[in-house]
Amino acid sequence: MIKIKLPDGNVREYAQGTTGMDIALSISEGLARNVLAAKVNGKVVDASLPINEDCDFQLLTWNDADGKSTFWHSSAHLLAEAIEALHPGTKFGIGPAIETGFYYDIDMGDKALSADEFKKIEDKMLELARQKNQYQRSEVSKADAIKYFTEKGDEYKLELLEGLEDGSITFYQQGNFTDLCRGPHIPNTGFIKAVKLMSVAGAYWRGDTSRKQMTRVYAVTFPKQKELEEYLTLLEEAKRRDHRKLGKELELFAFSEKVGMGLPLWLPKGTMLRERLENFLRRAQVRAGYSPVITPHIASKELYITSGHYAKYGADSFQPIRTPDEGEEFFLKPMNCPHHCEIYKTKPRSYRDLPLRLAEFGTVYRYEQSGELHGLTRVRGFTQDDAHIFCRPDQVEDEFMKVIDLVLYVFKALGFDNYSAQISLRDPENKEKYIGKDEDWDKAEAAIIKSAAAKGLPTVVELGEAAFYGPKLDFMVKDALGRKWQLGTIQVDYQLPQRFELEYTGSDNQKHRPVMIHRAPFGSLERFVAILIENTAGNFPLWLSPEQLAVLPISEKYEDYANEIFLRLQENDLRGYIDHRDEKIGRKIRDAEVNKLPFMLIVGEKESEQGMVSVRKKGEGDLGMMPIDQFISLMQGEINKNIVRFKE
Amino acid sequence: MIKIKLPDGNVREYAQGTTGMDIALSISEGLARNVLAAKVNGKVVDASLPINEDCDFQLLTWNDADGKSTFWHSSAHLLAEAIEALHPGTKFGIGPAIETGFYYDIDMGDKALSADEFKKIEDKMLELARQKNQYQRSEVSKADAIKYFTEKGDEYKLELLEGLEDGSITFYQQGNFTDLCRGPHIPNTGFIKAVKLMSVAGAYWRGDTSRKQMTRVYAVTFPKQKELEEYLTLLEEAKRRDHRKLGKELELFAFSEKVGMGLPLWLPKGTMLRERLENFLRRAQVRAGYSPVITPHIASKELYITSGHYAKYGADSFQPIRTPDEGEEFFLKPMNCPHHCEIYKTKPRSYRDLPLRLAEFGTVYRYEQSGELHGLTRVRGFTQDDAHIFCRPDQVEDEFMKVIDLVLYVFKALGFDNYSAQISLRDPENKEKYIGKDEDWDKAEAAIIKSAAAKGLPTVVELGEAAFYGPKLDFMVKDALGRKWQLGTIQVDYQLPQRFELEYTGSDNQKHRPVMIHRAPFGSLERFVAILIENTAGNFPLWLSPEQLAVLPISEKYEDYANEIFLRLQENDLRGYIDHRDEKIGRKIRDAEVNKLPFMLIVGEKESEQGMVSVRKKGEGDLGMMPIDQFISLMQGEINKNIVRFKE
Repeated sequence: MIKIKLPDGNVREYAQGTTGMDIALSISEGLARNVLAAKVNGKVVDASLPINEDCDFQLLTWNDADGKSTFWHSSAHLLAEAIEALHPGTKFGIGPAIETGFYYDIDMGDKALSADEFKKIEDKMLELARQKNQYQRSEVSKADAIKYFTEKGDEYKLELLEGLEDGSITFYQQGNFTDLCRGPHIPNTGFIKAVKLMSVAGAYWRGDTSRKQMTRVYAVTFPKQKELEEYLTLLEEAKRRDHRKLGKELELFAFSEKVGMGLPLWLPKGTMLRERLENFLRRAQVRAGYSPVITPHIASKELYITSGHYAKYGADSFQPIRTPDEGEEFFLKPMNCPHHCEIYKTKPRSYRDLPLRLAEFGTVYRYEQSGELHGLTRVRGFTQDDAHIFCRPDQVEDEFMKVIDLVLYVFKALGFDNYSAQISLRDPENKEKYIGKDEDWDKAEAAIIKSAAAKGLPTVVELGEAAFYGPKLDFMVKDALGRKWQLGTIQVDYQLPQRFELEYTGSDNQKHRPVMIHRAPFGSLERFVAILIENTAGNFPLWLSPEQLAVLPISEKYEDYANEIFLRLQENDLRGYIDHRDEKIGRKIRDAEVNKLPFMLIVGEKESEQGMVSVRKKGEGDLGMMPIDQFISLMQGEINKNIVRFKE
Repeated sequence: MIKIKLPDGNVREYAQGTTGMDIALSISEGLARNVLAAKVNGKVVDASLPINEDCDFQLLTWNDADGKSTFWHSSAHLLAEAIEALHPGTKFGIGPAIETGFYYDIDMGDKALSADEFKKIEDKMLELARQKNQYQRSEVSKADAIKYFTEKGDEYKLELLEGLEDGSITFYQQGNFTDLCRGPHIPNTGFIKAVKLMSVAGAYWRGDTSRKQMTRVYAVTFPKQKELEEYLTLLEEAKRRDHRKLGKELELFAFSEKVGMGLPLWLPKGTMLRERLENFLRRAQVRAGYSPVITPHIASKELYITSGHYAKYGADSFQPIRTPDEGEEFFLKPMNCPHHCEIYKTKPRSYRDLPLRLAEFGTVYRYEQSGELHGLTRVRGFTQDDAHIFCRPDQVEDEFMKVIDLVLYVFKALGFDNYSAQISLRDPENKEKYIGKDEDWDKAEAAIIKSAAAKGLPTVVELGEAAFYGPKLDFMVKDALGRKWQLGTIQVDYQLPQRFELEYTGSDNQKHRPVMIHRAPFGSLERFVAILIENTAGNFPLWLSPEQLAVLPISEKYEDYANEIFLRLQENDLRGYIDHRDEKIGRKIRDAEVNKLPFMLIVGEKESEQGMVSVRKKGEGDLGMMPIDQFISLMQGEINKNIVRFKE
């Protein structure tokens, strides 16, 4: 008998040679029907693999990331089988699972695979799936494996075999298709109930531009048809919410070839939005005891020699800015911390002056390959909502608590209710890799864990993931479509205070070194605005809306009244526009809807005679006629509901 | 007889050969006593020079810039005479008038001139001045001139003579001193009543570092002792107000060698001040119909090829930023206009969309030699309060009016009541030098003159001073010490719209080219803050003050009450600090005074028992005890008095 320890801590005894599927059946038949693979001592294996020793054991279903990945990898084999059935002689490269399904790189010789054929392949896959063919594992000798693929004429698999050692080679076969594969796989093709080919693209064999270009077929599969439908709906919705598309439609930002790729131009409406976000955070930060500062976007080489960044500049960075006359070299700043260290150093600091919290909306520049650029989420210039807290070691916990408070306040105000965090600590086995005192690390790590727990933050702790200069906590949010985004960070730093020789005079009248905490709730304003656009589909909360209202006069006759009203609204810090165009009111309303205006004020004869406005609210429709003052109160109420002040 | 036309337009007849002094005497003896020189057909001449033809004529006194300059040039000769009397054998280089007096470059051989000797030289100058020696002009042949300075052994004058043509050489002699000089000079040394040697410095002969280093003696003189005293007081005051000194003392900004010279770090208090200035202007601009935008601090070479700036980059500019991988070149932006042109081009514009007013607090970078840098007034990176108005040619006048309104609003709000402007127009004789349509220029120039007059702006019109791309208007303010500073500018531009091929669709459905107006009321925030510091001596208006109040608990016992009060103040958007130090109240008050705190709130037993604060106001002293609410109202009243909203 062997001891099988289940994830809930229970230990059960089974006969040696029992399989994952046996264990599943011993628990419940329903469970067994959903088992895709098993995890034995942390390694994913076939559910049919006999287990011969005591182990930690977990069954994997579609709800586990590893289960899903196995499902998709097996689906790649099914795709290959279908293609081989339809196009005998096709050669195969690799076919891994990826985050959004799987692909297979294929070589059909002179033939091309077009999207027209997707349906036929999908149908073939489903037909083969219905056969419930088992994924059968077999160990083969290298010689037999070479023989097999030589006969089949697949030079790609032969090349892959070259890198493998005799004795370690396995084949998997389902139906008529056999593949060189390490596995693991799902029990049989019958689990695959829904199939969708997504796209084809060119891909060089082994990513080498000098090798042959193959056809990469992307696809996704699901254990239920409904799940595929939901996935496709989600994709449609994500496309509809793509911040690049909405950014253009709502005139928030633009790119210009002449200015340069990855360098966003913030258009008036985007600037309005961004300035409101900045002001919102600036106000909260001032209340939380931060001091705003402003530093230049370049600095002399000397600064980066001190900070240690200079040694890391390479050919793929923005190159130095020279000034031949005086032989100086400047760099675009890639981060704000070295500048803030220099501010720390402008005067002697005492233990009573700490914590010193320097905050800056600092625009930094980092070179990215043009192929890596993507809307506002991957750019060459971006503005960090940066701050550096210089504190005593005994203040780290308190500061962490305060920063978490601030970050959660920001998330809540902006509608991200689904958040979590990863805490990255030292590798306890390799403490010598890290700089800073051992007891300071111990204190800081304990402080991070304690403060995250105290604030009720759902966290994952990762050992060995800390930077060499300090432990950190990274925030993740889930958006309205369930997608995860990494946002802000809080990071302890023992290195820069050392490199910059920062000091404070302690109560003991001795010199001490402060700890530095880097933190940015949004991370970058560009990235955050992108996420905000995708999360809200451009329907921003009223206080952020670049345009809160449109005044729509029914005809030219009511222009004066419209102007009069608009001035009143402006005086009350409400913003928007008057639609002065010579268009029918229906058209004006439609255009305001397209532009996602939260409120429309329609003014005609009745309204102007009675000093009223007819109000339409997005999502709620007609609110009827009301005095302008009542409308202003309504707006102010909605705005204040959203934007609560941050309190210490 | 000849006709002499006086500045008031009057024409008088005099005998041929009459002198400026004769004319002065014919008007009034009092006037004659003050005449330093004369201006004949625009040329400054000795008052003793005979006039032989009809001419435009003006008498020059101390109140004329040319009169003052002549006075100081003559004083340089007096300085040389005194030095020669005290140090026979001294050799002389050049001795011109400058903006703040005059200097003479001298060579005393092995001897050095120290400040200890200033008094002796000043006394000698006054002694020689009292002799009322005439400045006597004589024409000499080159041969005689060479002979004179060869005998005297002055190789500097001999070298100067080399460059002169025979027949054009004049000497001036007063007392025992004779100098090679074009003149003109004041009648006699008796006009010089007050003398002050300021400093000595090294200066290479002819500014050539390979030539001999001479001693440059700086001095200033006045026709009245009282004027010297006022000048010295002013200098003291200017030194006291030097923004570099106050900027450091008040912790507004700092420079760091590692970040780089000329790249200011805005410290927390300076940032507070600057953000308030920005917000003030931002709010006024939104009310005036501007749209804020944000653009990156770099741009691809292509942008500057289009704008025409690329051709002007030289070895003395910041050099391009290379990215070897993709062969791109970027530049730090030296101005914001090209970026704004690209924003204009992000969508088609109609005549109804204009004017489009794009505003940005845009930080730009321009290389300056390290020797040219000066505090915040001459830097390598600065933030323009920039905006570009894209409008139809028929809107130029209206836009100019609106910009002048805005600029005057800014000046008034910031206490600059003494302002004027220079209007720079085309050279009417050389219209072909300028780009843009003749009729557009005519319209724009008329519009500028008309709008300046309509707004009651005191102006000087300069022909031929326009840029080749458009006419402009520059604002000047006089500060509290009577010093003139150039501030904002409004500039018409026909060139960039052409280079960027900007267009709008007119009401005629045809494509037209918009006019661009550049404008910046502050000019640059760095420069403006420098001027503001010097103008207010750091006593900023309450709404701008980085710290508006200090709460001073009399002892530790009242800390809690101080904290409670401070929170109330913060909730009402008032700012400052609590002095928590363990110091006597007298010391706390003194320190708050040094830091120029507008208000102090002293809290002790009585105050905490009765829920009151004892208020001290800067410049007014003790205001007595009052409830905290009353103090808040008092503050809000003072702030609102200062800061009126800008209305269209």
